[in-house]
Amino acid sequence: MILDKVNCPDDVKGLSFSEMEILADEMRELIIKKVNTIGGHCGPNLGIAEATIALHYVFNSPEDKIVFDVSHQCYPHKFITGRKEGFLKPENYMKYTGYTAPEESEHDIFKVGHTSTSVSLATGLAKARDLKGETGNVIALIGDGSLSGGEAFEGLDNAAVLNSNIIIIVNDNDMSIAPNEGGLYKNLKLLRDTNGQAECNYFKSLGFDYLYIGEGNNVEKLIDGFKKVKDIDHPVVVHIVTEKGKGLKPATEHKEMFHWIMPNTLDENNNLIPMNYSGGEDWYSITKDYILKKAQEDKSVIAINPATPGVFGFNQDFRNKLGKQYIDVGIAEEHAIAFASGLAKGGAKPILNVMSSFIQRTYDQLSQDLCLNNSPITLLIWWGGISSADSTHLCTFDMAMMGNIPNLVYLAPTNKEEYLRMLDWSVNQTEFSTAIRVPSCEFVSTGIADTTDYSEEINKFKMVRQGEKIAVIGLGNFFGLAENVVNEIKAQLGIDATLINPRFITGIDEEMLNNLKLNHDLVITLEDGEINGGFGEKISRYLGNSNLKVLNYGSHKEFTDRIPLAELYKRYRLTPEQIVEDVASCLNLNAII
Amino acid sequence: MILDKVNCPDDVKGLSFSEMEILADEMRELIIKKVNTIGGHCGPNLGIAEATIALHYVFNSPEDKIVFDVSHQCYPHKFITGRKEGFLKPENYMKYTGYTAPEESEHDIFKVGHTSTSVSLATGLAKARDLKGETGNVIALIGDGSLSGGEAFEGLDNAAVLNSNIIIIVNDNDMSIAPNEGGLYKNLKLLRDTNGQAECNYFKSLGFDYLYIGEGNNVEKLIDGFKKVKDIDHPVVVHIVTEKGKGLKPATEHKEMFHWIMPNTLDENNNLIPMNYSGGEDWYSITKDYILKKAQEDKSVIAINPATPGVFGFNQDFRNKLGKQYIDVGIAEEHAIAFASGLAKGGAKPILNVMSSFIQRTYDQLSQDLCLNNSPITLLIWWGGISSADSTHLCTFDMAMMGNIPNLVYLAPTNKEEYLRMLDWSVNQTEFSTAIRVPSCEFVSTGIADTTDYSEEINKFKMVRQGEKIAVIGLGNFFGLAENVVNEIKAQLGIDATLINPRFITGIDEEMLNNLKLNHDLVITLEDGEINGGFGEKISRYLGNSNLKVLNYGSHKEFTDRIPLAELYKRYRLTPEQIVEDVASCLNLNAII
Repeated sequence: MILDKVNCPDDVKGLSFSEMEILADEMRELIIKKVNTIGGHCGPNLGIAEATIALHYVFNSPEDKIVFDVSHQCYPHKFITGRKEGFLKPENYMKYTGYTAPEESEHDIFKVGHTSTSVSLATGLAKARDLKGETGNVIALIGDGSLSGGEAFEGLDNAAVLNSNIIIIVNDNDMSIAPNEGGLYKNLKLLRDTNGQAECNYFKSLGFDYLYIGEGNNVEKLIDGFKKVKDIDHPVVVHIVTEKGKGLKPATEHKEMFHWIMPNTLDENNNLIPMNYSGGEDWYSITKDYILKKAQEDKSVIAINPATPGVFGFNQDFRNKLGKQYIDVGIAEEHAIAFASGLAKGGAKPILNVMSSFIQRTYDQLSQDLCLNNSPITLLIWWGGISSADSTHLCTFDMAMMGNIPNLVYLAPTNKEEYLRMLDWSVNQTEFSTAIRVPSCEFVSTGIADTTDYSEEINKFKMVRQGEKIAVIGLGNFFGLAENVVNEIKAQLGIDATLINPRFITGIDEEMLNNLKLNHDLVITLEDGEINGGFGEKISRYLGNSNLKVLNYGSHKEFTDRIPLAELYKRYRLTPEQIVEDVASCLNLNAII
Repeated sequence: MILDKVNCPDDVKGLSFSEMEILADEMRELIIKKVNTIGGHCGPNLGIAEATIALHYVFNSPEDKIVFDVSHQCYPHKFITGRKEGFLKPENYMKYTGYTAPEESEHDIFKVGHTSTSVSLATGLAKARDLKGETGNVIALIGDGSLSGGEAFEGLDNAAVLNSNIIIIVNDNDMSIAPNEGGLYKNLKLLRDTNGQAECNYFKSLGFDYLYIGEGNNVEKLIDGFKKVKDIDHPVVVHIVTEKGKGLKPATEHKEMFHWIMPNTLDENNNLIPMNYSGGEDWYSITKDYILKKAQEDKSVIAINPATPGVFGFNQDFRNKLGKQYIDVGIAEEHAIAFASGLAKGGAKPILNVMSSFIQRTYDQLSQDLCLNNSPITLLIWWGGISSADSTHLCTFDMAMMGNIPNLVYLAPTNKEEYLRMLDWSVNQTEFSTAIRVPSCEFVSTGIADTTDYSEEINKFKMVRQGEKIAVIGLGNFFGLAENVVNEIKAQLGIDATLINPRFITGIDEEMLNNLKLNHDLVITLEDGEINGGFGEKISRYLGNSNLKVLNYGSHKEFTDRIPLAELYKRYRLTPEQIVEDVASCLNLNAII
């Protein structure tokens, strides 16, 4: 294998063009095996192999600095920068993250997992170089999909006036995660169609010098182009056209599906294994069924998402059925919120879907565009909860971020019937800016219809079981944990604890809390997210001047990185046993068993 | 006066061109009087008078919907839409807000005060119209300065593919709040220089149809142009060139100074009254002095701000002295954070200045680009605190928003010496992503140098006076209030309370809190910002399982709108008298006097 000879970037510089081509294929083969074994980003990495080789051939990392946007296309870079063992043997597959990680290598400058950041980060590196009188190239590698994010535009607008070396490589594979949306993409197509010659050029309009490389999977052409811009003394965009999923037929045929794949997507011959849909109900299916039905009944209902339909199970069939009542706005979360606010003010009924980790991009839009205007939208937050994810994709912060914004009604359903009722209430009401944290726990159906008019019960908690001494408040995903804790308290301490489903993340039920004071000594809050700034602390504050003690449970203020969920629960004392231990200690109780 | 005839948009439709010109001048005269009396946005409103008249002449508001970006240029619109009385007599000056406000008029669709939102909001209105099968024009009026914000780009990228009527009027006065920065502005200049004819055109590159009106203060030309795009069936940008500050000589000569003016900026002849600099020390002067000195000593120090240098007192003299060590990135807060993170990783020492209300635009950048990477920047948050501001510009939320982001060290100094020490510590250290909430309280100097090494004391509170029974923790701006509360407790209850300066917003001193349990019954926290998700709740949580009671004070979760500070303090029970009343009630104590 050529790969045997490559242990650092310098080793690439000694290869011939044909050896480099073989190297690209070797890396692709290993990437496919790995992501098909443990899951991972597939298409982006297959397409960027040649460009990564060419970058390391022409430039001298780490003196020349390469910043990867989103950084989920850094696998070939990891091969070349001393981390190929993470791809060679299955036992090493988990050794390195799927993103750039400075703790792994001096060739990785930033930890990055959210999109559209590379140009701004690189501009900072370049300006630091200039201030310190140093030299070297600064390179941002950004995909076409990431260009739709506002931060990328802000970065380009500023990079263009840097007046010194910065090289923006636009990796154009004509795909975002899903197909691109937006006017910009017509311009990229025009540029591709004219071999980069069209005068109407987004990058030139921002003031960049511009170089077009149509054959972005041809190492020779890439090296030739990169040599032209090496040590350039002004900002330049190098527009390269690559094939997403290159070298893997199913990946080029199903680009969206192969952006990130699950284990065992392919058989031993790299053919697609047909998916077995269970056909059973889950949080995805009931959401889609609701939206389809509602959209059919009411032409003003519209489902929106920013660039990640797969996260919500919004497959092509679903999108086709919705037609004009479905919009993917691309990677543009800020726009998504303001757009939805405008839709609501115009009398439509927007249902906006965003993954918890990415709603972080919209604090100000939630505050100013949405809640200050009380625009009645339905915002579905997906995947919220403590997880074993990479540190760049944690979904633990949404409640602490959104929960303190005035006017927002943020709901946490605990079962199918409650979720569907909240959803229907939210879509039909016109008073409140509403968000719902779609459950990410096991699917639970009670079989008992929820007929609550939530407008009449804003911030009213639901008393599920009236007990004494100890009240357990289980929010959303953690209602099941609360049930277990109540049972464990009974079993171990012989106490019939009170069980409460708070339903609302953004407010507290003062009346119910006041009543608890009469025959309770302790309140326990359980939330599936960051405890700092979260739901439980509001209850601690409210009860701070009473004799009721409070224990808040949730995740700590930290970025965790691929820690198994069981380990995190233990760390945060989120097992029923640990909680009952804390209860006994807090109330000086002894176990009855 | 022509204005006498104008009470609603229809009245404009009956005016001749020359009457419209007179109307523009009449409105300008009244605007100047008003803003010179109570303060307000001056230059933007003087420049947009003709365009506003032309809009109401050609279009039919509210059937046609006009969305104002930032909306601080809506004064002429308020004249025409039934609110001229707010400008005619000083006693009515406060009657209407300085921004669009749906509660005032059906012609105002959104409450807007942060920039770059109009295109997305308008796209939502247009899409709602289409879904419902309605007709009518949707118009976004956006200034050139606002175009640099990422949300505006995301909006344009999506508006361009709407496939139906949306009209984006770009009001190009060649100024942001301060001079424009960014590559885009070279393109706007090119378009102005070529009478809109240049092929390299930012708006066309995004897919818009494009119309150029060079004489944007000529009602006839404007009306002619607007008529061309009325009822258009596809997205169009109308690029109009206006004069910021038109009709007021000092405003055209000092465009930045006249963006927003204080009362009594002009004499009775509308000449500029020379400013009397006190020359005394204040939070602005000591910050600037520090930055200048440090920048001279260390060429890697760089002061950054996104578009609002005036907020920090960064005048032209200061900027000139810093030279290349100063960058205004324009309205691009997201870029500002990532850029600073890049600078820090490149070994420079960025000091980034942002107003509290606008840091809201950067939650994800603070989390991902900055804190996940532990980039050692110094972020100065200005004007943070409860205020009598308009609901769109509140500065009460920064602590609740930033305080729960992992890794961030957010400091709250209480006096000059402490602030300067924190600033110097932050700039020189390389371990932590640091923010400092620049005090916005009265200037306090103790005369006692602070020599703390804050790296050694992360999250350690400062025990200022050890007392008993009651501990008062006064954060940042509210340390002075804490001193008053301690004195009032002594006077009224005869108790020597403990006084604590926590210094850190982002952590709690568990050791000190544990020690308080020994001889205290109550802890009081005071913070100048939203109590939900804020500093005090973390203490309530930590002490939730102890016998110590806690009272948290701060602002409520609400958007307040121009409420006098004294009234807000009373509402939030933030006077020493109210607090001591609460203390007495909580501890069942009787006043000794």
